[in-house]
Amino acid sequence: MTKERLYLYDTTLRDGQQTQGVQFSTAEKVQITEALDGLGIDYIEGGWPGANPTDSAFFDAAPKTQARLTAFGMTKRSGRSAENDDVLAAVLNAGTGTVCLVGKAHDYHVTEALGISLDENVENVRASMAHIVSLGREALYDAEHFFDGYKDNPAYAVQVCKAALAAGARWIVLCDTNGGALPSEVGRIVAEVIAAGIPGDHLAIHTHNDTEQAVACSLAAVDAGARQIQGTLNGLGERCGNANLTSLIPTLLLKEPYASQFETGINRDSLASLTRISRMLDDTLNRVPSKQSAYVGASAFAHKAGLHASAILKDPSTYEHIDPSVVGNERIIPMSNQAGQSNLRKRLSDAGMVVEKGDPALGRILDRIKAREGEGYSYDTAQASFELLAREELGQMPKFFEVKRYKVTVERRKNKYNKMVSLSEAVVVVKVDGEKKLSVSESMDETGNDRGPVNALSKALAKDLGQYSETLTDMKLVDFKVRITQGGTEAVTRVIIDSEDGQGRRWSTVGVSANIVDASFEALLDAIQWKLIRDRGVVA
Amino acid sequence: MTKERLYLYDTTLRDGQQTQGVQFSTAEKVQITEALDGLGIDYIEGGWPGANPTDSAFFDAAPKTQARLTAFGMTKRSGRSAENDDVLAAVLNAGTGTVCLVGKAHDYHVTEALGISLDENVENVRASMAHIVSLGREALYDAEHFFDGYKDNPAYAVQVCKAALAAGARWIVLCDTNGGALPSEVGRIVAEVIAAGIPGDHLAIHTHNDTEQAVACSLAAVDAGARQIQGTLNGLGERCGNANLTSLIPTLLLKEPYASQFETGINRDSLASLTRISRMLDDTLNRVPSKQSAYVGASAFAHKAGLHASAILKDPSTYEHIDPSVVGNERIIPMSNQAGQSNLRKRLSDAGMVVEKGDPALGRILDRIKAREGEGYSYDTAQASFELLAREELGQMPKFFEVKRYKVTVERRKNKYNKMVSLSEAVVVVKVDGEKKLSVSESMDETGNDRGPVNALSKALAKDLGQYSETLTDMKLVDFKVRITQGGTEAVTRVIIDSEDGQGRRWSTVGVSANIVDASFEALLDAIQWKLIRDRGVVA
Repeated sequence: MTKERLYLYDTTLRDGQQTQGVQFSTAEKVQITEALDGLGIDYIEGGWPGANPTDSAFFDAAPKTQARLTAFGMTKRSGRSAENDDVLAAVLNAGTGTVCLVGKAHDYHVTEALGISLDENVENVRASMAHIVSLGREALYDAEHFFDGYKDNPAYAVQVCKAALAAGARWIVLCDTNGGALPSEVGRIVAEVIAAGIPGDHLAIHTHNDTEQAVACSLAAVDAGARQIQGTLNGLGERCGNANLTSLIPTLLLKEPYASQFETGINRDSLASLTRISRMLDDTLNRVPSKQSAYVGASAFAHKAGLHASAILKDPSTYEHIDPSVVGNERIIPMSNQAGQSNLRKRLSDAGMVVEKGDPALGRILDRIKAREGEGYSYDTAQASFELLAREELGQMPKFFEVKRYKVTVERRKNKYNKMVSLSEAVVVVKVDGEKKLSVSESMDETGNDRGPVNALSKALAKDLGQYSETLTDMKLVDFKVRITQGGTEAVTRVIIDSEDGQGRRWSTVGVSANIVDASFEALLDAIQWKLIRDRGVVA
Repeated sequence: MTKERLYLYDTTLRDGQQTQGVQFSTAEKVQITEALDGLGIDYIEGGWPGANPTDSAFFDAAPKTQARLTAFGMTKRSGRSAENDDVLAAVLNAGTGTVCLVGKAHDYHVTEALGISLDENVENVRASMAHIVSLGREALYDAEHFFDGYKDNPAYAVQVCKAALAAGARWIVLCDTNGGALPSEVGRIVAEVIAAGIPGDHLAIHTHNDTEQAVACSLAAVDAGARQIQGTLNGLGERCGNANLTSLIPTLLLKEPYASQFETGINRDSLASLTRISRMLDDTLNRVPSKQSAYVGASAFAHKAGLHASAILKDPSTYEHIDPSVVGNERIIPMSNQAGQSNLRKRLSDAGMVVEKGDPALGRILDRIKAREGEGYSYDTAQASFELLAREELGQMPKFFEVKRYKVTVERRKNKYNKMVSLSEAVVVVKVDGEKKLSVSESMDETGNDRGPVNALSKALAKDLGQYSETLTDMKLVDFKVRITQGGTEAVTRVIIDSEDGQGRRWSTVGVSANIVDASFEALLDAIQWKLIRDRGVVA
């Protein structure tokens, strides 16, 4: 049986940006676009050109993609032609091959919010679609409030969609804008729309999670015949979010009837990158990834119940609905048992440390990780700090230098031009090769801007480390993440530093303290020591 | 039309405790039980007596409830009678009027995991149910892996359930233990089970969120005829969690066909406590509540898109599926670079500043917000900083004091016991009531621990603000969020501080700088000024 094509449309960069607290930079938009394109998404909606500067900048230098990059906007306003609507012109000027325009489909909104006649609205939609098509572009009509509109006035809701289709729109996007529709309603209404003459392979579904059913509503629409799903990574979006593509994609590829019935742009290889992409997005947003997320959450395959954990060791299928590696995720079984040690040996060997099964050091390392996690450390991403901790327990940690003390000041005062400026200054005292060295640095960058106390400390520390300074010249701090977390009974600060060197290596280290500067310094020290181990050939 | 009774069964205290990182104390279990009982839940599953000490202690001194308090356990093991099974005896000894026992319903698990014959398993289930009933208690059979079992061997799965029913079980709980079933499957299978002779008003549904569809699966089962739903508050539970009662309850009470068809134990008054109960549970677990949660999330009624926000002001139903107050939640119209003037006026009036339509200050405020967002500020959550910015533009910002300069040091060195310790010290110079005041503070808390440079600065600043110091004594910093973001072409640090005072008011402020201490200081200053405005009666 040939499979039917099902299309996936991502709106992380547009509707996802409506999430409270989310504002992508242009660089972040590019990074996310590349991840989506690598995954195999069919359409990537990049934003609303002309509506805000970041979106315009993104389209001005849009990355080349396999996916169809799509500009979003709204249908032409009344009282002018599609050709003469400046808002629409700004959208078209982005030059994308595909354009998606939102327009009303609910009679109440037409007469009350827009204050125009029902026919005028139909004409606005028709003319806008026709204009896009006349330019040789692919057109999508985003039927706002379609489901609520259909419930109030089905004839009108369908009439607007049919006008868009007749004008050449490739897709009619049925939107549950307010997110209140239930899957059973969505399924029924999509079937009725198809029966009314709009073919399912021209229908897209766009849902929101206001009743925690956006995924189910999307699948109900597909069951009824729709052939495009719109959603976002990690379910970002206005209010409770959009349909979560991160949950939908594995269900479509792995579960029946979808797996046998449909083909998407996503293959098994890219499916295995899903967990990584989901976490990357959270990193970009500096969000703590939700552990309980379907498929990609850190707890999604964690087996805490004793009965479950022991059965899992016999046969994972007893308590797992899919194999976690298929989506790039991992099984977690409490560290205390045997599986904890084999996981640990795997992770050590990844770092070049071969430890025999049954080595008592394994138990000591697990105990120390547990104790440190209790203090607020986290070794999920801080692989370099994990490696240093393991080396210490294994007696494989060289002593390059010792920090005797440091002091950093942050000062804010008026300068000679009567302008408030800040400046940091750090003094670090280290003992290296039997010699005590005192280094000082301030926090100014090349342009005379204060980069803060951690920058000053970092420069002072690297300044005079004797034989080691040379090794550190190509190392730089590329990211710095701070979280308040629980350490024992106190709130503490956890700092994760990402470093990079001239060879393009990137590594993460962690520091914890109630004092943010001290936590940063600890992570910084780990970063330097890891680099020294790597470059000076100290391996197990 | 008389409504049918639909029962709600909460397993937050048992299955919810399988969440990674969750372990309730006995006192917490009592607190949650009281909240569930006040809400009007029918059954509260308290835990597995005998399986762990906290659960046993909870049942030993269980609170009196309207709800039926339920003990959980497993069906008797082979080779002994129900009367002589010590694990079952421990469950029954908890003395609850209702008992729920899990037992296998999937043939593969019977023969492979238990290693007993299929008939023997049926007999274990039957005898266990009969034993509970003989003691005059209400019995539930928790049919583990029911849906996977039914897909492999429908006759056997139904046979076990029928044996439990014949033995007197009040409810047969159909469990999707691994969480992989889809709503369409659940609906079909429940209908088939009813057709096979188990009445729907004896069927309960128990689902997990591994495909993000536990809510939809529960409703599909109800659509097919099941009359009890099992779930947890906030969707706690093993792996991706259980069906989220916090999402299901409002849907059942507010949405058709459920609202007209069913009666539950929950009334409109207790529905309005749902948001508070959800947040209380997160507080108990020291979790940051998920903003995007359906119905109860802080963002669930946040309208960020400019088009939406302006329509909401005319008629909230245009972009809201329900009235937020019905579930005890609130509408939020955040400021962002997508917001328009009407949105801005609404937000200003919420803060007590009435500004006429068309006032040129509105444009100036929007421009400043836009410019500040370009520098890395964000006013989505930092409502207090937004208010101060607006006051400045409106000429309504009192000048309480002026910070002339500050200096903070962070030092790490060995103490007299040769142990590395860190200490921060801050000096702040302010001008207040025409007088220059110099204050100093260190960063130690009551227990002698260093709380870092921001703490030291905060204490020094509040120490001597003349007439204002008194007002600030009940203010404390409750959360501190840091992210690296783009400010113009440079990476900068954005700090958001949440403060709280003795009246339980909570407010958020923002600061941005390449220097983390300086960004924190800015947010701190805003927090203090907002508090002074509020408490010293300066309103527009």
